[in-house]
This record gives sequence, C-alpha cells and structure tokens, in this order.
Amino acid sequence: MAKDKKQPRPKAETPKGFRDYFGAEVTERQQMLEKIAEVYRLHGFDPLETSAVETVEALGKFLPDVDRPNEGVFAWQEDEGEGGPWLALRYDMTAPLARVAAQFRNDLPSPYRRYTMGPVWRNEKPGPGRFRQFYQCDADTVGAPSVAADAEICGMLADTLEAVGIERGDYIVRVNNRKVLNGVLEVAGLSGDDKEAERGMVLRAIDKFDRLGKAGVQALLGEGRRDDSGDFTAGAQLSQSQIHIIMQFVDAFDLAQEHLAKEASAAIEEGFEERAQLLNRARNCVMNATRDLHVGDVEAHGIWTDRVLDILQGITGNSPVGLQGVNELRTIAELTKAAGYGDGRIVIDPSVVRGLGYYTGPVYEAELTFEIPDEKGRPRQFGSVAGGGRYDDLVKRFTGQEVPATGVSIGVDRLLAALRAKGRLTGTTEGPVIVTVMDRDRMADYQRMAAWLRHAGIRAEVYLGNPKNFGNQLKYADKRGSPVAVIQGEDEAARGVVQLKDLILGAKLAQEATLEEWKSQPAQVEVPLADLVEEVRKLLERHR
Amino acid sequence: MAKDKKQPRPKAETPKGFRDYFGAEVTERQQMLEKIAEVYRLHGFDPLETSAVETVEALGKFLPDVDRPNEGVFAWQEDEGEGGPWLALRYDMTAPLARVAAQFRNDLPSPYRRYTMGPVWRNEKPGPGRFRQFYQCDADTVGAPSVAADAEICGMLADTLEAVGIERGDYIVRVNNRKVLNGVLEVAGLSGDDKEAERGMVLRAIDKFDRLGKAGVQALLGEGRRDDSGDFTAGAQLSQSQIHIIMQFVDAFDLAQEHLAKEASAAIEEGFEERAQLLNRARNCVMNATRDLHVGDVEAHGIWTDRVLDILQGITGNSPVGLQGVNELRTIAELTKAAGYGDGRIVIDPSVVRGLGYYTGPVYEAELTFEIPDEKGRPRQFGSVAGGGRYDDLVKRFTGQEVPATGVSIGVDRLLAALRAKGRLTGTTEGPVIVTVMDRDRMADYQRMAAWLRHAGIRAEVYLGNPKNFGNQLKYADKRGSPVAVIQGEDEAARGVVQLKDLILGAKLAQEATLEEWKSQPAQVEVPLADLVEEVRKLLERHR
Repeated sequence: MAKDKKQPRPKAETPKGFRDYFGAEVTERQQMLEKIAEVYRLHGFDPLETSAVETVEALGKFLPDVDRPNEGVFAWQEDEGEGGPWLALRYDMTAPLARVAAQFRNDLPSPYRRYTMGPVWRNEKPGPGRFRQFYQCDADTVGAPSVAADAEICGMLADTLEAVGIERGDYIVRVNNRKVLNGVLEVAGLSGDDKEAERGMVLRAIDKFDRLGKAGVQALLGEGRRDDSGDFTAGAQLSQSQIHIIMQFVDAFDLAQEHLAKEASAAIEEGFEERAQLLNRARNCVMNATRDLHVGDVEAHGIWTDRVLDILQGITGNSPVGLQGVNELRTIAELTKAAGYGDGRIVIDPSVVRGLGYYTGPVYEAELTFEIPDEKGRPRQFGSVAGGGRYDDLVKRFTGQEVPATGVSIGVDRLLAALRAKGRLTGTTEGPVIVTVMDRDRMADYQRMAAWLRHAGIRAEVYLGNPKNFGNQLKYADKRGSPVAVIQGEDEAARGVVQLKDLILGAKLAQEATLEEWKSQPAQVEVPLADLVEEVRKLLERHR
Repeated sequence: MAKDKKQPRPKAETPKGFRDYFGAEVTERQQMLEKIAEVYRLHGFDPLETSAVETVEALGKFLPDVDRPNEGVFAWQEDEGEGGPWLALRYDMTAPLARVAAQFRNDLPSPYRRYTMGPVWRNEKPGPGRFRQFYQCDADTVGAPSVAADAEICGMLADTLEAVGIERGDYIVRVNNRKVLNGVLEVAGLSGDDKEAERGMVLRAIDKFDRLGKAGVQALLGEGRRDDSGDFTAGAQLSQSQIHIIMQFVDAFDLAQEHLAKEASAAIEEGFEERAQLLNRARNCVMNATRDLHVGDVEAHGIWTDRVLDILQGITGNSPVGLQGVNELRTIAELTKAAGYGDGRIVIDPSVVRGLGYYTGPVYEAELTFEIPDEKGRPRQFGSVAGGGRYDDLVKRFTGQEVPATGVSIGVDRLLAALRAKGRLTGTTEGPVIVTVMDRDRMADYQRMAAWLRHAGIRAEVYLGNPKNFGNQLKYADKRGSPVAVIQGEDEAARGVVQLKDLILGAKLAQEATLEEWKSQPAQVEVPLADLVEEVRKLLERHR
C-alpha cells in the first residue's frame, strides 16, 4: 500500500502503433489464414516458420526505399557494451526467406516452395488504421528460373481469393514485367547509370496512374504537378519525345481499345458481323477507366491480351530486355489460360509497377474491384490486397550465386477488411451457455451441469464472478452473447428440474414482442435436470 | 560483382538461440494448438491476441526471479536520444493479460475468460534445446475470486491433454495451495518479514523433492547438500523442530499411506474384508516414489484425498492462512470430483511449489507420467508440460485494485515433444504429385494437368526447376516425399496418354522386391490423359 503511493502506477497501454485483437477478430483471421494455407498447400508449397528476430546483418538494408541503417525496423544490440551483434524484428517475410534459402541451400529441395504466415514489424510513424505490427501471408518459389513459376502464383492468387470468399468478378490479378518497364526506359534513353533518379521518378509517376490519371502522370513526367491542396510535386523534366514514349506505354489500354474499335469497324464493313461482335467484346473486356471487369469471355479476353502485348512489343521491341519482358508476359498469358484463368481474371496491365526496388521480372498485384464507401461516404474501389513478383538477387547477397525466385505476399488485414465489407465474416462466435449460481454452496452441482454440456460438445461455463447479485449474472451472460442461461435454485433442485432462459428470444421479445407473443413464446422453460443437455440443444438449434 | 569483393558477405544465420521450423514442424504445432483452442473455447474462454511488443513499464519487473532491469527481456528505446519509452518483447502471456485487464476493465465482461497462443521471447543464455523464442498457450480467468475457477482450469487441463492425444493414465494434474505452504512456514516460525530468504530456500528445497528425494530436501533445509559432482549447495540452517514440521508436510504422502495401512489392518481385524480392500486400494492409488497412477478408482481416490487433506490440516491447522488453504484444496477436490475428474487424474500433492513469486493461492501442474529414454538411454518420467495458479495482485500494479485471477500455461514445445515420443504425431505431410517436364515447350499442358489434379483436391505441382536433367526431377520428387510422378513426353502426348510413376511403391520395390514382385507390381503405368485424375487418385488410395 505504502509502495503504491511512493511509485507512480504504470500506464496500462499498448505502445503507440500497436493494438490488441479480441474474440472474433482473432478467430476470423485464423480461419482466413487456414483457408489460404490450404490453397498454398494444394499447390505444393510447404510451411516455414522463421523466428521473429534476425540479425541486422542478415536482414540487409531493411525496408526498401529506406536508406538510413536501423530506420524502419525495431533493432537493438545484443550484449551492449561487449559489442554483440545487432538484432532486429523482421519487417517482411522475404528477407528471412532469403536467409533460410542461403543457410539451408544444401538441404532444401530445389526449387524450394514455401509458404509462411505471421506478424511483421515496421518502425514507422503510426497513424489511424496504420499499425506497426501486422500479418503477412506469403508464398514463394526459390530456384525456379521459368516464368511458369510466376504464372502459377498468379493463378494461385485467384484461387486463394475465391477460397476465402471473394467472388469471381470481384477481383482481378494484374500482371506486368519490370523488363518491359526497363525496355521502355531504355527506348526513352533513360537506361544509363546516371539516370537512376529519373527512372525512380518515372516509375513512381506510372504507379500513380490509377489515382491521378493520364494527365497527372504526364505532368509528373514533365514539369511537375500541383495537387488540389496546392502542394507541388517536382517532375522528372523529361523531353516531349521521352514523355511520348512513356505515355504510349501508360496508354497501352487505350491504344488497344482504339485498335480493336478499328478492327471491328473493318470487320463490319467486310460483312463479318460475328467477328465484329467478338472484337467489340474484346475491346470492352477490360475498361481502363473503371477497371470494370467482364469475367468469363475467354475468347474475347484472349484477343484483348494479344492486342495489349502487340502494343507493348511495338513500344519496347527495339530493346532486347523489353522484348524479353513482352515474351515472358506472353508465356504467362498462355500458361494461365491453359490452367483455366484465361477468362479475364488475370490481366496483363502495364500500369502495375510495385514499389519495391528488388523486383527483376514479372510483377503482379491482386485488386478487389468492388466499391466500398470511403471515410466521406463516397464509393471507392477497394484496391490492392496482395502483390509480388520476381526477385533474382536476394539470395546472392549471402552466397554470391544468383538464385531466381518469385513470390506473393497477401496483406492479411486488408483482405480481412474486404471480407468484412462484403459481409463474408460472420463476426459472431457463439457465446457459451451460462450456468448461473443461485446457491454458492451448490457449486459442485453447477460444475457438473457445465461438464455434461461440454461433453455433448456444447460451449458452457459456470458463472465464476461474485454470485450475490443475480442481475449481474444475467448482465454477464448478455455481454458474452450467451444463448441460454441455466438456472437452478433451492426449489428447482428439490424438484430435480432446471430453468432454461432463452436469452436470444428474450432479447428479441423485449425489443419487439406484442403481449400475445410474450404469452405464446415463453423465453423461459422448466425442464427435468436429466433432460438438460437435450433441451439446451433444442434451444440452440432454434436460433441456428 | 566488384561490390561483392569489397564488402564481406553477410552470414546466413539465425541469431544465437533462435531457430526455423520447417514443414511438418509447423503444421503439427498448428494442429495441436487448434485442438487446445477448441477445448478452451468449449469451456467458455474467448481468444485474445496482444502485440509482441509492450512498454517496459507495462511489463513490470520482467521475469520473476530476475531483478536487474532489462535482464531477461529483449528491450530497446524508442526514439533514442529523444528519450522515448523503452519497449520490449513480451516474455510471457500473463503480463500482457494484466495490462489488457487494466486497460479495458470497463469494457470487458467480468469475469474475463481468455485464451491466447503465440511466441514469447526470453533474453537468456541459449543452450542445447533451449531457445529464446518459444510458444505458450494460456487460459486465464480474471475477476473470479472463487476457487471454482481454479478447479475448472485443472479439469480443463486434463481434457486438453486428452484432446491432443495423451491417454488417460499417462498424465496427472497435481494441485497444491500456496496458502498451505504459507501455513507450514508460519507454524515453523518462518513467517516474519525478516525471514524472506529462508522462505525462498525452503520453497526451492521442496520444489526439488521430485529430483532429490526426502534426504536431499532434508539436507537443504539444514546444513546444506553436496551433490554427486562435489558441488555444495548451502542449506537454510533451520532448527531440528522446524525441519521436522516441514518434512511432515513433504512426507504427507508417506504419512497418508501409513495411516491407510493401519486402518486397513484394523478393518481386517474387525472382519471388514471389503473395507480393508478399499483402504488398500486407496493406499496404493498414488505411489509417492514413482507417482505411478492408478486411474479410475473414484472411491479409493476419494479416501486417499481425504487422508492427505487431513494430514495437511493436522500440520497447518493452527495457522489461519494454512487452514484456509486446506479448505480451498478440499473445495477443489470436491468440485473436480463433481465434474468427473475424481478418478485420480487430479491429485492434491503438497510437493507442488511452482517457482513464480506471484502465485497467491492454488497452484497446479500437469505432469506426464510415462517414461522416455534420457540422453543416456535411461528411462525417465517425461515430467511437467503445463502449470499455473492463482495470482491476485497482477492487475493491481496498474489500477490499485486487487483483481483475483487464475490461469494455466501450456509449454507447447514440451507437449509436442511428448506427443512425438508417444508416436502421436504422424510427422508426414503428404508430398505433392509432381508433373514432370519432358518438353519445355509444352509447359502449358503440364500446368493444365496440375490444375486438373488441384481442382480434384489433389496436391500437385509442375516441376519448376531446370528440366534438362530428368534425374534431377525424380530426385526432387523424392526429396518432397511425392507419392506419384506424372510423365508425358512427345510420344505419350501424340498418343494422348501419360505415364504415372508410383514413387512409394517404386521405393519399396527398389529396397526389398524379388524379381517376380517387380514384374507383378509395375511401379509405372500408362493411362489415358482423360483418366489422369481418376488414376492418380487410385494410386494415392493404394498407399493410405
């Protein structure tokens, strides 16, 4: 007591940017992760769980796009003073995978296909809805040079989204290739070592296409752009011809649509009515503006894909790396079509950039296309929930040998939020049956009742707070979302019966019942003690 | 390349004391945790997941029995230089629960029953088999003053062990009460504030009863003890009468057996043959030396429990706290018997101490009683896999209000090791069917086959390494534990068939087959492509 007065009490608070997850929040995530794991497993991926802590040396230069050491991660020195190694919490699942692939390279199967799920930590400024610990769920194939590995992961991503409850037509997997981007940059004369800054600006500008549209990107490539708030973003100061090349690339969808419109007109003129219809369906199968997706028309989508790839080849064809990139995209389109995803669920899309510096080939992103209201109530497309790509240099840091790898990471919290928005998470775990305590000397009897119920698979507990105030017991049952309260006082015990209070019906009646309903649907029934389990089960089934 | 020579490559290593978990290690743990969660849920506990990171302030004095600040935990300062708060990784699940119970005390139901599972971190010297990150799986009831809460958790612990695959008779839940220990210390004149050091030595000595036996404990209470290696442990230097009191307590099992032997003799003399048999069964139902448990005899175990409690009451009866402790144990025995655990699975056992300083009432421990060979091949009892008890002061640190709480923590890795030792973990996840690549231009066909198999729920993948060397493909299939390889070369493709290689049968034949078996059981069959799924399924079923 005296101690309490001397020392101030510690604050009962999570650190800034961290939070707790209660009840259904935990089980809903767990259930979603299990469904994802099952799809990954079906595709031949094996689980891996690395420790949360890595050496700073193994993690490398930390978060991409962050240069200062120790920035972006939670790090500390082991045996401070004695010069121990620096340790840090992992900031993603890819860096630990690179370490594992190097450390166990002689024991692991090659290719090594692994999935992993768990929290990662980022030492960033927390904001509303922005946490410093969050879940990632990754699948990667290490040691597979073929883009068949990328194609497979794109298809798996589609399967995964459907497995967790996102319907076909509500998502799209968009694929691009860094090599195509590099080809465009090369053609635009931006491939020199001295052009790294410009390249970064161009990639960031393209990445903003979804948000800023064509004019916004164009401004960022040139003089710069002033946004609605008056803030000015400096531009890449490219020449008109450079901008033209890059905008052709950004415009590939529009160009493809123009081509198809012309082809359709020509087909009509030549009297090929059916062909014209197909070309028009192809033209409309991915709308650039809204990314409204028409899933299911394999034939039309095949034509669409061909036209987009032809345009990309037209732009980058003079660059060897660009041509290679286009050919890889062609292979991905062919393989995903063969595996049954050629119906427009997987789309070649040149606007996909993916910020991370380490990608070297195909990049992919899963986007949810349905709208949810934003904070101001305006409808917004839900947007990206997963992304990834090919990174061929990550293991090389450790071994000196280049190891081709590709993989995807699902933003677990974003995907959960999407499922919640679509009403796909029930959010309710059924509360336990509460055996109330009328007579504290008869605790053994109450425990026996709870044990019976549990043996029958019914979630049940005896009220363990102070039983003096019976109202508190019912309030507790209410707070727990309990469907049924079991009540046995002295009188009921003597007669070998219990009262069962149907709390769900009770709450409903209290809200809306007429007097007659009250009478015809008693929310409380008396049953023989011997029938307790059977009668509780009946009540539970009534509400399922 | 030049860069690689300038900078030394980072080491691909986990930090000391950390490790990775591969494949079945991950899924086996996950499956066990799900079974435990289901039992916890059935008992009315709700999930909670706190973040891995807490403020050092909220964690408090860290590991029990560790006094130096920051010792035992991984800690770092936020915004170093600007004097930010110290943060640390949680070292157990109880400290974060205390923080949550204080932080959300107005919103949580009371009592608050929660379970949680996840890694915890200890900054300790790593040793063989001793890791600095490991899993805990806890269930606690906060706000329940009644020992009914303790009794319930003891029963739940028994249910949990059986749910994960420990058979009845292979475990025992031992229960004691710190208040009984305090009563003994009071009777022995060791209750003063100035006697804290002695009390610690006495508790530690009792805790070693299992290992050192009666003589060892007696030595530690008196002059001290020299072990086999010659090392000397200082004793508590108690007087003979003090030692006598404490040893009576430690001897309670022997005393109870003596009493029962006398009673049995008397019963025979008086001609009550049946009664004598019952008393002898009671006498033998818990053997002190081996803790060999005879489960199932409720009547005998009831008598045994009564005698042990009578002896404890005889020793501590003059101490009010001691008497209260004995009465609480009586209630726990009564309640667990009522709930169906009175058959000897839950045993009152005065030798249970539980090191942690914060326990204030009942303490309990689940011990596996079967033997496994130790590192020298000698049979050893497996020992403790879970423990817990009542701690009434933990939330008070934050709020000033005493909140009664009780809970259990399962040592996940120990329990997994036990299940492995008992052969209860299959350890094998079925490897994927491997579609081999004979012709790299026909990747789309191979991907289509894999997609068919997956749609039928069969785990499958196309070989994604370099397909040049077919032997490498089969080696890969072998390393993955693949049951079947699918092979389709140019010739098979032309004829519309595939070869299915039964790799399990193949391996078996290679090891042990006679020439005739080789001929009669072909490990490779040719089937029409259209029957691929059906024929693979048949092969898989052959080996299940």
